[in-house]
Amino acid sequence: MLEALKQQVWEANLLLPKHNLVVFTWGNVSGIDREKGLFVIKPSGVDYDKLKPEHMVVVNLKGEKVEGDLNPSSDTATHVELYNAFPNIGGVVHTHSRWATIWAQGGRAIPAYGTTHGDYFYGSIPCTRAMTPEEIGGEYEKETGRVIVETFQGKDPDHIPAVLVKSHGPFTWGKDCMEAVHNSVVLEELAMMAWHTENLAKEQVPSMQQELLDKHFLRKHGANAYYGQK
Amino acid sequence: MLEALKQQVWEANLLLPKHNLVVFTWGNVSGIDREKGLFVIKPSGVDYDKLKPEHMVVVNLKGEKVEGDLNPSSDTATHVELYNAFPNIGGVVHTHSRWATIWAQGGRAIPAYGTTHGDYFYGSIPCTRAMTPEEIGGEYEKETGRVIVETFQGKDPDHIPAVLVKSHGPFTWGKDCMEAVHNSVVLEELAMMAWHTENLAKEQVPSMQQELLDKHFLRKHGANAYYGQK
Amino acid sequence: MLEALKQQVWEANLLLPKHNLVVFTWGNVSGIDREKGLFVIKPSGVDYDKLKPEHMVVVNLKGEKVEGDLNPSSDTATHVELYNAFPNIGGVVHTHSRWATIWAQGGRAIPAYGTTHGDYFYGSIPCTRAMTPEEIGGEYEKETGRVIVETFQGKDPDHIPAVLVKSHGPFTWGKDCMEAVHNSVVLEELAMMAWHTENLAKEQVPSMQQELLDKHFLRKHGANAYYGQK
Amino acid sequence: MLEALKQQVWEANLLLPKHNLVVFTWGNVSGIDREKGLFVIKPSGVDYDKLKPEHMVVVNLKGEKVEGDLNPSSDTATHVELYNAFPNIGGVVHTHSRWATIWAQGGRAIPAYGTTHGDYFYGSIPCTRAMTPEEIGGEYEKETGRVIVETFQGKDPDHIPAVLVKSHGPFTWGKDCMEAVHNSVVLEELAMMAWHTENLAKEQVPSMQQELLDKHFLRKHGANAYYGQK
Repeated sequence: MLEALKQQVWEANLLLPKHNLVVFTWGNVSGIDREKGLFVIKPSGVDYDKLKPEHMVVVNLKGEKVEGDLNPSSDTATHVELYNAFPNIGGVVHTHSRWATIWAQGGRAIPAYGTTHGDYFYGSIPCTRAMTPEEIGGEYEKETGRVIVETFQGKDPDHIPAVLVKSHGPFTWGKDCMEAVHNSVVLEELAMMAWHTENLAKEQVPSMQQELLDKHFLRKHGANAYYGQK
Repeated sequence: MLEALKQQVWEANLLLPKHNLVVFTWGNVSGIDREKGLFVIKPSGVDYDKLKPEHMVVVNLKGEKVEGDLNPSSDTATHVELYNAFPNIGGVVHTHSRWATIWAQGGRAIPAYGTTHGDYFYGSIPCTRAMTPEEIGGEYEKETGRVIVETFQGKDPDHIPAVLVKSHGPFTWGKDCMEAVHNSVVLEELAMMAWHTENLAKEQVPSMQQELLDKHFLRKHGANAYYGQK
Repeated sequence: MLEALKQQVWEANLLLPKHNLVVFTWGNVSGIDREKGLFVIKPSGVDYDKLKPEHMVVVNLKGEKVEGDLNPSSDTATHVELYNAFPNIGGVVHTHSRWATIWAQGGRAIPAYGTTHGDYFYGSIPCTRAMTPEEIGGEYEKETGRVIVETFQGKDPDHIPAVLVKSHGPFTWGKDCMEAVHNSVVLEELAMMAWHTENLAKEQVPSMQQELLDKHFLRKHGANAYYGQK
Repeated sequence: MLEALKQQVWEANLLLPKHNLVVFTWGNVSGIDREKGLFVIKPSGVDYDKLKPEHMVVVNLKGEKVEGDLNPSSDTATHVELYNAFPNIGGVVHTHSRWATIWAQGGRAIPAYGTTHGDYFYGSIPCTRAMTPEEIGGEYEKETGRVIVETFQGKDPDHIPAVLVKSHGPFTWGKDCMEAVHNSVVLEELAMMAWHTENLAKEQVPSMQQELLDKHFLRKHGANAYYGQK
């Protein structure tokens, strides 16, 4: 059942450790077959280096397991909400990647600070509100999906394919699971660069002495250079 | 004697450089056989790439060497204190891993800022008080263990399997030495993310111009895209 | 046509991922044959691990494709402006490398803080002004080149072989494409170190206790050392 | 001549890129034969991956080349000063390693913040004063050595085997060239951790909600856990 999709979702899952986005089992990728209304997702708590295509679990859009020996990811109900609310997406990724998680822990959206951001995200990457005790105590993973969908009211998830869940971490998506992973990699870069852009000092400290700059530039360049084997 | 445990403790020690938690010989792992009341620990100052299972040293819960040609880790007496005070733990790890050590050097507990933390630690990861000159000048390594145990008065070491020793570095533990190493890896991630969460800027700086955001998003996406080979 | 130059430009492009300067396809290198007035550039949006010498595109100094099956880099028009304005340069590199991009996003020049900088750049590495809506909405990539050239009025591009394009990222150049890549690597180091130099704390926090310093130094050094197997 | 020492110095030089302490050719190691009064040093500007033992240059304690086809490192005269002033040292290393260079660029000594520091350095690692225009314009590399020696007046170079040269970078030393490299690795770790120790936030930001902490800890631990395949 859905063998090609299982293979693709398995490959997409293995890209997470390859791109240094996960530690241990802290991530999951799913991909959907929209015609059949079924998606394939990583099993819960299985090491990436032991993961095989046949371990992938098939789930329907009610969140019910349709095929598979293992339990699906504990975040499966969040994926279900996203597939139901965002009709154009074909893949979903969740990680605890460092830089995106730092913004999530700070409860802040990532502003668009440069063209690297603009090449992929048409505006800030939002952060969800804090969940209520009722949401946390109830169907928690489903409610996580709902608060993401709420966050996108008035936003286009196809133009901003990522979200930060407050005090938790990022979810990304894309036209298929490979694009969703691609967007996770991009998000991590943007989060790292935005953190440092905001913390860039507002003014410079004393530069080096002009004499020292002259000495070093001129000992390597020009007529009197003496560095190297020239 | 304890050959299977020696093998496991040796493997656990080798995970420290693999996970980038140690430089040179700056770390040690031990694992205990609770029935026999003996634990196995890395020898002192031996390079990880020369370490073999037969180098492991067997020590009893008084801190006396029972078997082994080499001196046990100089931190052995700290391990003894932890095994005696925390009856459920089966393994102990000490490193000078960067991010955890930064918090230890600052003398601060690591607060719970996100679900990555909550998945492993049920509350802040504490930092010990400064040791007294008498403690430092006396049985230093044993006193280090005692101050850790003191720090856990009123806390459950099974639910918070790590501590920062002030001006020194982290100790972690677990049901066995493999879980103790696992917790060291997690601690390092949490310490890195918590540092950056606290230093996340409180407000954003000016975003990029809207015209530039439009230009870059639309040159890659939509009907008029011209990036790539489309 | 220009087979040796294609080979060299291809090799130079592959150095970008090797030196960790690019993610996915976020970079491009070109190299020029000044006698023929033609330059060779990476195609747009092709993965580095699929890139072959024969994929390189030949372009003239009006920005017209002269040979090649693929579209040249979307930044080709910027390269054209640089080759036309800076007569001594033989290669150009554009990346979104992290640290240089952080400075570009902050809109700040990188001051000369040390001899590592002075060994390669004879003064601050400038950042361009914000582009006007007209420049962004017009021939954007060409205007990007023009604003770089404007930034170098009164500066010597042979002595400062790099620029930061505001809200975008760095361009570097050199006597050939290999030196241009070399300068990209150097720029990234300088940007990382300058960021941290400016953010170095202005004063120290409390040092460790003297007793603890004594204990640790003396347990490893001198007559009473007991660390290791001595 | 000094073939065994050449071999050792060559190996020590190769450890610099292995430990990620140098970019391109930005570093050099030397080792001395005290009986003969000759030291062996890396040639200037030669790539590490092309370096062979026979490229090593033999120099006497006046700084004169005694054997070798290539020019010795441009920093040779600094090494000479250190060997002449510090009689117990057997090896010297110079790099532009990132974190140590950041402190050098900031003109600050690295305080002793923890036992990792105390295990190797018996006090702060000093930073030299700014050199005068006369020193820079004169025998620059020799004067660099002299200002290092001046910095150690009243300090013991055997107990503090490193220095930061202001606006430049670190020099380290040791009983032989291998220990000098070892100390360079240690210095880089200490510099990274000290920077972050000083910039650790002074107080925490809001922690995660208690309900969310409960939820995540308890979904993985205890009787009602449902994470993984349990």
